[in-house]
Amino acid sequence: NSKLKIFSLNSNEPLAASIAKEMGVELGKSSVKHFSDGEIQISIEESIRGCDVFIVQSTSAPVNENLMELLIMIDAVKRASARTVNVVMPYYGYARQDRKARSREPITAKLVANLLETAGATRVVLLDLHAPQIQGFFDILIDHLVGVPLISDYFSQKGWNPEDIVVVSPDHGGVTRARKMAERLKAPIAIIDKRRPKPNVAEVMNIVGNVEGKICILIDDIIDTAGTITIGADALLKSGAKEVYASCTHPVLSGPAIERIDNSVIKELVITDSIQLPEEKKIAKITQLSVAKLLADAIVRIYENKSVSKLFD
Amino acid sequence: NSKLKIFSLNSNEPLAASIAKEMGVELGKSSVKHFSDGEIQISIEESIRGCDVFIVQSTSAPVNENLMELLIMIDAVKRASARTVNVVMPYYGYARQDRKARSREPITAKLVANLLETAGATRVVLLDLHAPQIQGFFDILIDHLVGVPLISDYFSQKGWNPEDIVVVSPDHGGVTRARKMAERLKAPIAIIDKRRPKPNVAEVMNIVGNVEGKICILIDDIIDTAGTITIGADALLKSGAKEVYASCTHPVLSGPAIERIDNSVIKELVITDSIQLPEEKKIAKITQLSVAKLLADAIVRIYENKSVSKLFD
Ligand SMILES: Nc1ncnc2c1ncn2[C@@H]1O[C@H](COP(=O)(O)O)[C@@H](O)[C@H]1O
Ligand SMILES: Nc1ncnc2c1ncn2[C@@H]1O[C@H](COP(=O)(O)O)[C@@H](O)[C@H]1O
Repeated sequence: NSKLKIFSLNSNEPLAASIAKEMGVELGKSSVKHFSDGEIQISIEESIRGCDVFIVQSTSAPVNENLMELLIMIDAVKRASARTVNVVMPYYGYARQDRKARSREPITAKLVANLLETAGATRVVLLDLHAPQIQGFFDILIDHLVGVPLISDYFSQKGWNPEDIVVVSPDHGGVTRARKMAERLKAPIAIIDKRRPKPNVAEVMNIVGNVEGKICILIDDIIDTAGTITIGADALLKSGAKEVYASCTHPVLSGPAIERIDNSVIKELVITDSIQLPEEKKIAKITQLSVAKLLADAIVRIYENKSVSKLFD
Repeated sequence: NSKLKIFSLNSNEPLAASIAKEMGVELGKSSVKHFSDGEIQISIEESIRGCDVFIVQSTSAPVNENLMELLIMIDAVKRASARTVNVVMPYYGYARQDRKARSREPITAKLVANLLETAGATRVVLLDLHAPQIQGFFDILIDHLVGVPLISDYFSQKGWNPEDIVVVSPDHGGVTRARKMAERLKAPIAIIDKRRPKPNVAEVMNIVGNVEGKICILIDDIIDTAGTITIGADALLKSGAKEVYASCTHPVLSGPAIERIDNSVIKELVITDSIQLPEEKKIAKITQLSVAKLLADAIVRIYENKSVSKLFD
């Protein structure tokens, strides 16, 4: 039986450490440094010959640096005679460039999938892809985990009466996700329907569904600049909602995000640790749940050649 | 007959502009921006359907950013129905990681070649690769240009008597390059022979060849932190050289390089514009020659389906 080894790169060491702890193993020894000119220098500092290797890396900001670290590490692991090269990618950067929205644009999400394969990945573990279709961008094995159960369970523990709550999708694209959360919470759903009456005229927010007097739980996959979610929260209150909570799997939180959330009507923002938050972004309103156990379970099941989808039964 | 289009990315716009000027064409219109979270956003702003497209980009620092820009641009060009996707890469980053120097290291120079192919490059124009073997890392067409003629011609114009000069290789790896320059200048060569008598004991410099009373011209492919070249220049003077000039194709010039060169015995450093120099690095001692004409000639010959190696006859 081949041995399992987990390596962490630089994007999310705390999560990698938690995963290893959940599994009762130590992280593999490797060194990721930079040469004087900024080129990445990686070396693996223990034998991995014949091993099933899992590399934990989110391609969050700085995305290009983190992606190249990952590709170079995959190359090093492959050339060190690993049996399998498994990439655990809690956050998949460039996922929003998943189609040609306009002419002569790249499809970078597909490019990234191809780059991972070319470097030598044999399997990729993903979490809440921006579009589930990105699974089909890979010809190698992938596992697609979802964060909804973790986030729903957190809200369940609030002990709210299901009749008092409504799960809200901030846009049309997220209705399936909101639906899944609503099922777990035995609550109805609502949708924020944004329309731009004419080009260059402000969007109009329309709430589809009943939110009056309710505790609203907004759910999204990514919160980036937090514009959509904070404006959505305002619209919910204006439509008579009692309180607004928000949640997402991937806290990108770039640019004005933290300020917007802090100043918003949102009571609490629930996120996961798929992306590491720098200290200055850990404001009181934010609750961070860990996906470490979910990922650890997936890694063990993959290693033992068991079905990962069984995790969701 | 298909049309030729040249696009510049961000690493070396002045060089791309000079190439276009040499050819009497305009640079293609494209936009390379960043989303709020740092992801690269590229769009091509004119039709390139059926065109032979040339993308000018050096993967100099910030190397990972510049490489990802290039890969995403290749993807965009390919998907915009270009006939051919030609990459003009005056400086090939990661070239020094071209073999496993130690166990469990990546071969990043090969990874980069694979990534370019995967993204969709159909041909790559390269200049003075750190090792010519990197040509073999590609399965697509490549053209390998050399900077020695340009640099030699510059020194020829000094009007020195060939008997007064000697071309010096700063290490064993660069002897072939020094040999080529010496041929053009009709001068002899010398080699700086570095040896470490025991581990952790300072290297000893030994000059192979006669430099006494001579004007020495050091030539290398890359000058990075400038340690080798400045120490080599000292050793040459100590061995009786009259004056020391230095030259290289790729001015990486990272870390202490500029300070070292400024404080060194080197009279003049001759470099090319394969890598763009920021203003603060343009010290009086440095002379920058342009490879624009060389690259423009290569692009035109490729476009006209003529032999590029004829450029060196
Ligand atoms: N990193 C990013 N930040 C903001 N917008 C992006 C990013 N990547 C892609 N997009 C845009 O977001 C849109 C896709 O988002 P969606 O419609 O939610 O799938 C596309 O029109 C992209 O141009
Ligand atoms: N960006 C870099 N900066 C400094 N050294 C490097 C870099 N990339 C690779 N190297 C090292 O340089 C050596 C190759 O240089 P060379 O022996 O001149 O071909 C290898 O041992 C590499 O570990």
